[in-house]
Amino acid sequence: MVTAKLIGNVWATRKAESLNGFKFMMAEIISGTRTGERMIVVDTISAGIGDRVIVTTGSSARRMLGDDGIPVDAVVVGIIDEDCEFI
Amino acid sequence: MVTAKLIGNVWATRKAESLNGFKFMMAEIISGTRTGERMIVVDTISAGIGDRVIVTTGSSARRMLGDDGIPVDAVVVGIIDEDCEFI
Amino acid sequence: MVTAKLIGNVWATRKAESLNGFKFMMAEIISGTRTGERMIVVDTISAGIGDRVIVTTGSSARRMLGDDGIPVDAVVVGIIDEDCEFI
Amino acid sequence: MVTAKLIGNVWATRKAESLNGFKFMMAEIISGTRTGERMIVVDTISAGIGDRVIVTTGSSARRMLGDDGIPVDAVVVGIIDEDCEFI
Amino acid sequence: MVTAKLIGNVWATRKAESLNGFKFMMAEIISGTRTGERMIVVDTISAGIGDRVIVTTGSSARRMLGDDGIPVDAVVVGIIDEDCEFI
Repeated sequence: MVTAKLIGNVWATRKAESLNGFKFMMAEIISGTRTGERMIVVDTISAGIGDRVIVTTGSSARRMLGDDGIPVDAVVVGIIDEDCEFI
Repeated sequence: MVTAKLIGNVWATRKAESLNGFKFMMAEIISGTRTGERMIVVDTISAGIGDRVIVTTGSSARRMLGDDGIPVDAVVVGIIDEDCEFI
Repeated sequence: MVTAKLIGNVWATRKAESLNGFKFMMAEIISGTRTGERMIVVDTISAGIGDRVIVTTGSSARRMLGDDGIPVDAVVVGIIDEDCEFI
Repeated sequence: MVTAKLIGNVWATRKAESLNGFKFMMAEIISGTRTGERMIVVDTISAGIGDRVIVTTGSSARRMLGDDGIPVDAVVVGIIDEDCEFI
Repeated sequence: MVTAKLIGNVWATRKAESLNGFKFMMAEIISGTRTGERMIVVDTISAGIGDRVIVTTGSSARRMLGDDGIPVDAVVVGIIDEDCEFI
């Protein structure tokens, strides 16, 4: 998984029907040499802009969605505790 | 998922039979440190050149195609709203 | 998918039995910031050295081979038309 | 797989229910050109901070967890022997 | 697949039970812009240190192992012929 900060919402009115109802956010990696890499993630655990989160990618991301047929490859799986200084 | 701009069509007369009928386009990543990376994507939601899109990659991409047997690893899953300034 | 040029054949007499009969070629990415990255691909559509091709990677690559048990992660799925100037 | 050093614990009180009980750690790649890349991994074999470990990523990572439904894409699969100087 | 040279053995006494009996080796990519990237691979075809090999990664790697439950994401699938000068 990667450590990322949520930095904004992403709006796409025209999209795959199976994606209706999902919240898309822009995440930016904040740890290690991949810092600054951005990806669009789906959030299902009510994370917010500014939160540092754990992002799972690939086929494992679909495991968060309760339906293996959703075309999503990156999801927020956890929000890192604020007092967890180490990232 | 990655944020990309569609920058052209890709034509391949000789290709896998299972790919007949699909529209291939060149996409270029436009956000974060991967900016400038290009990939060929399949579009099934009538996106056009110049559109900023959300691209899903890997096994999740096949979930857009209604047939898990298609040898495609990147698809357009959404078109980012024009008034979504943040990417 | 990535855009690559086929630049040579790769011979491996000792290999997995399930790979017997497949043609292996060296491909080099020719578009975007990944230009110059090389990968070994399987070709099943009679592509040749010098051809510009579309390469599918990951689990989707196995979809070209008619047998999900083949340990291959990159295949040629199309040959880009010669008059397709844009890549 | 990649060679990484475990450099800290990662705490996330709010996370997917299916992740309860798993131990998350920060790992940093320590071999080759990817040195310095960080990822969050799940450890199920009692590795500790400072250990050099073998990390498996992607769908193969879920094979460590006894449940294919867990949204995890990186796990520790082995602890490199201390007297294994070569990494 | 990637072209790599096997440069050493990797020993991990403490590891997942399902990995017992497998031979782990360090491989270094030797072709293209990823040259110098290292990964730990499983070898099941009696490759040796110094051999130039074809490495398959991801879910396809598990196809070499006869058991889809093994947490391995990179395996040697072929040894490149010594007289194959082109890599």
